[in-house]
Amino acid sequence: MMECGWIAHGINGFLLDVYGVLYDSGSSDIAIDGSAEAVKKLKSAGIPLRICSNTSSKTSQMVAAALTSLGFEISLDEVFTPIPAVKQYLRQNMLRPYVIVDPAVEAEFNEFDQSDPNCVVLGDATTAFTYTRLNSAFRLLMQQPGIPLITMGTGKYYKDVDGIMLDVGPFTKGLEYACGVEATVIGKPSKEFFMAALSSMNVDPQDAVMIGDDIVSDISGAQACGVRGIQVRTGKYRPEDEPHPSIKPDAYVDNLLHAVDDFLTYSAKQLT
Amino acid sequence: MMECGWIAHGINGFLLDVYGVLYDSGSSDIAIDGSAEAVKKLKSAGIPLRICSNTSSKTSQMVAAALTSLGFEISLDEVFTPIPAVKQYLRQNMLRPYVIVDPAVEAEFNEFDQSDPNCVVLGDATTAFTYTRLNSAFRLLMQQPGIPLITMGTGKYYKDVDGIMLDVGPFTKGLEYACGVEATVIGKPSKEFFMAALSSMNVDPQDAVMIGDDIVSDISGAQACGVRGIQVRTGKYRPEDEPHPSIKPDAYVDNLLHAVDDFLTYSAKQLT
Repeated sequence: MMECGWIAHGINGFLLDVYGVLYDSGSSDIAIDGSAEAVKKLKSAGIPLRICSNTSSKTSQMVAAALTSLGFEISLDEVFTPIPAVKQYLRQNMLRPYVIVDPAVEAEFNEFDQSDPNCVVLGDATTAFTYTRLNSAFRLLMQQPGIPLITMGTGKYYKDVDGIMLDVGPFTKGLEYACGVEATVIGKPSKEFFMAALSSMNVDPQDAVMIGDDIVSDISGAQACGVRGIQVRTGKYRPEDEPHPSIKPDAYVDNLLHAVDDFLTYSAKQLT
Repeated sequence: MMECGWIAHGINGFLLDVYGVLYDSGSSDIAIDGSAEAVKKLKSAGIPLRICSNTSSKTSQMVAAALTSLGFEISLDEVFTPIPAVKQYLRQNMLRPYVIVDPAVEAEFNEFDQSDPNCVVLGDATTAFTYTRLNSAFRLLMQQPGIPLITMGTGKYYKDVDGIMLDVGPFTKGLEYACGVEATVIGKPSKEFFMAALSSMNVDPQDAVMIGDDIVSDISGAQACGVRGIQVRTGKYRPEDEPHPSIKPDAYVDNLLHAVDDFLTYSAKQLT
């Protein structure tokens, strides 16, 4: 159980991924064993935490509601997802987006003029990723060279209750290749996204840990900001993913509860 | 008119791309001005030629028929497209494909057992590139690590009568990224594909020229085989594509007729 004890030193805040760490999503959501208990233990110990998720098929409100219904003690102000960050970016840059997102969150972009678009926004759109829409995005990017291709993360895939699902990343890479452009990432692994979550709980990167199942978006992204990254063996984790050829998590843990128990045991010992 | 005269020396065979060189495809196909005449002139001069196309939404028979109906003197044995090459590859390797291609050519794969697939085949599928099908391909590639991802080319896009259209390349790149694999390319720019076309007319690479509108698939691909590559300024060519940052065509020409006239003028002078 002491597998990640050594990295617990000086931790004052937790960043938690949602899918694959707190619960597996899908036609019916399923909490991952022990994760609700782990969150409860962190709160009882007075350790601040933030949900740091690339979920773009749900609003932050929907994520908070889903977590609550699954028994997690999480409030809306603890949830960081890309949609609010993208909306802020669009407002600041006075952009008119061509949006390809899950129909469940399309209304989030109603405040923006979407006629005559001058940027493209991609989310985890699943079946809304049609050829016709991708081709419309492609034509916009080619007709107006230099306009932003904004993507809510670069994740390759996530694990749904029904199986593994292509995430927004492969569609982003396809458009990048077609147009010869580089996307603007809003969400993990972008530094701004991690820093906004850390800043909201007033914790410095070196005092925080990110726990996730995505070795690139979660672990490598956090480490690039100076945050320790712990890889869970739940969600889309597969034994053949370990070790990763180029990314070295600060620790591997079987699940979130394991990490939290380990952290709390270590912290208690430091106090005695 | 002598812009590419210097590269005509020693040419004994022509490889011609179809879309953007002979005609622009779409809801109604439109021959490119002078191209039918150019083909006729080459034939009158006894110069062998082959159609070397990555078209995977039409069979070779359909390409030959389309060309004939547009006034081109082209016979079926002069047409090289990826579908026959892919079918040969599948037979040789006893593969059961999961196929994402244009519905117009799906029947071409009827001879193969498509239950329990052990490879993925991608063509220019346009609206058949649905999330559901791409995700099924993705799951197969992840569940059976090492099985081939076969793609009929890596083209970024092509020009349709109705506008530019995403080609198979971006979807291939997306799946490569998601799975961490490299696709097997059957079609341009693979060397085997160019060599098969050259071999059929008994012309060595150094004695041949490839004329195309795709700087990567046509020009760079041909040059990698030792074939001279001429970029036409028709089809999807855009002025801002010239010069290319890394690929240097042996010549640029306004259109196919320009190249052929130039070649024939040069050849006539050599004989006098």
